[in-house]
Amino acid sequence: MSVFTKVSAEQLAGWLKNYSLGTLLDLQGIAAGIENTNYFVTTTHGKFVLTLFEKLQSHELPFYLNLMSHLSRHGIPSPKPIANFDDELLSILNGKPASIVTCLSGQPIEQPGAADCAEVGEMLADMHLAGRSYSASMPNPRGPHWWNATAPRLRQILPADEVELLDAEVHFQSRHRFDDLPRGVIHADLFRDNVLFTDGAIGGVIDFYFACSDALLYDVAIAVNDWCVRRGGLDAAKTTALLDAYHATRTFTENEKRAWPVMLRAGALRFWVSRLFDFHLPRAGELTHAKDPAHFRNILRGHIAAKPEFAV
Amino acid sequence: MSVFTKVSAEQLAGWLKNYSLGTLLDLQGIAAGIENTNYFVTTTHGKFVLTLFEKLQSHELPFYLNLMSHLSRHGIPSPKPIANFDDELLSILNGKPASIVTCLSGQPIEQPGAADCAEVGEMLADMHLAGRSYSASMPNPRGPHWWNATAPRLRQILPADEVELLDAEVHFQSRHRFDDLPRGVIHADLFRDNVLFTDGAIGGVIDFYFACSDALLYDVAIAVNDWCVRRGGLDAAKTTALLDAYHATRTFTENEKRAWPVMLRAGALRFWVSRLFDFHLPRAGELTHAKDPAHFRNILRGHIAAKPEFAV
Repeated sequence: MSVFTKVSAEQLAGWLKNYSLGTLLDLQGIAAGIENTNYFVTTTHGKFVLTLFEKLQSHELPFYLNLMSHLSRHGIPSPKPIANFDDELLSILNGKPASIVTCLSGQPIEQPGAADCAEVGEMLADMHLAGRSYSASMPNPRGPHWWNATAPRLRQILPADEVELLDAEVHFQSRHRFDDLPRGVIHADLFRDNVLFTDGAIGGVIDFYFACSDALLYDVAIAVNDWCVRRGGLDAAKTTALLDAYHATRTFTENEKRAWPVMLRAGALRFWVSRLFDFHLPRAGELTHAKDPAHFRNILRGHIAAKPEFAV
Repeated sequence: MSVFTKVSAEQLAGWLKNYSLGTLLDLQGIAAGIENTNYFVTTTHGKFVLTLFEKLQSHELPFYLNLMSHLSRHGIPSPKPIANFDDELLSILNGKPASIVTCLSGQPIEQPGAADCAEVGEMLADMHLAGRSYSASMPNPRGPHWWNATAPRLRQILPADEVELLDAEVHFQSRHRFDDLPRGVIHADLFRDNVLFTDGAIGGVIDFYFACSDALLYDVAIAVNDWCVRRGGLDAAKTTALLDAYHATRTFTENEKRAWPVMLRAGALRFWVSRLFDFHLPRAGELTHAKDPAHFRNILRGHIAAKPEFAV
């Protein structure tokens, strides 16, 4: 259950008096999510999602909210934050920073086919192109600096063969800085549960709270590691479909093609480390929906063994 | 037929390469509208409306496009103009200023009930409140200055009793300046054909190309003159429903209540004069979809006879 801060209909109706969203009709807590309080909100103007931010601070939020607003302005089906009468996307509700965004249509798909992967590739490229005119930036909080700092804390917990794998991969990645790759704003978490499909088309891209500034190819690697994975490695047809569709919208550079095998490993390392951390070292009082870290360890091992070539 | 400038799928696909809207799937000319060329455009990201502006110039368009963008940002279901990779809402297609906006759902209703009028009243008040943070302004091109200039040209055409009515009303309005009323950005054309309903709720408010800066009450009068009219005057139940719903969202001032009978007449005069002009003095080469001017002459006469009181 993810309603950490309760909001009554009366409290919300009062808060909504500062918005052009009509009259409140319904309010339902949302069980999913482990970081924020979320409600489905229905007004005479439509259906929205209310978020009360439980960990992110007010000064951290404009990067994410303005990004969603920018992408929506460019036709990306991202949640559109609604501005209040002060023209602000963020205000305080029950003591927490709060925002209300449009509710997008569709459902995640667990077993995507190659055609779905192609849709994702095209949408990701479109997001990267639209993001070029977004002026704010945000260093990646889960980049090399973070895994260099985190890996030593995991060493005491892991079996010897995993310590060896972790040390070797952190060292391997430190030899590749990717400074010559196109950079920009990335979603950084474009897993299957963050893309909503409706009638075979993408109706929504959600959860921008890991978005940051980094190599665009890193975003592609994160997506491929989830959308195109099969037991023991990548599904060639799905990977080709995603990369081809991306490439048709934003052309990969030669440097990106060369960096691909290393970037796939970087994407796997990032989620292996964060899942290890959430699994073994949860923060006090944190709800533990920790996912199995072994999944990304296996993907990393698969990439190291297979040395996947760039397919485009 | 309102496709003055033809656009081929190939030309549009080329233009769309500067947008994050995915791949073009379909393109259909729209017959409605007499001022611009409009197409329905379907891409892998959804359905949109493409407009090529045939009369408005590039420098005049940002007021309207930024207004629609602003209202959409505030949750008003107005068409949302899509920005291109230069973050511009406007660019050139086949030599014409062109913009692509989201396609809204719903259909106009010809015979609204009191409940529909209440929805319109609430939405209009929400638009006025959201418009407060819109910084641009645009003098009303169909205000007193315009009807003072236009009336003399009509005098030669009209029968004596209508000349008398026109002169008397222009004189009457000149004695009321409305400087003490709340002002802001208004739609100025919120007739039944510009509001789309879906399942009894407003799914879209369209056609912002008469929007301007003026007394907010003038916008209410224009809406009431269309939504609440019945043979010989206003339907009391519909008028009360629209005004009550507006008032519940934005409280009318005492000055507005006093100005109401005069403002209803101003709204009727404005459309009587423009319809007379379009009917008798069409511009060369203009498609004449001119509507019967007598409709607003009768409304004006009805208001003068009835002296409608403010119902809230």
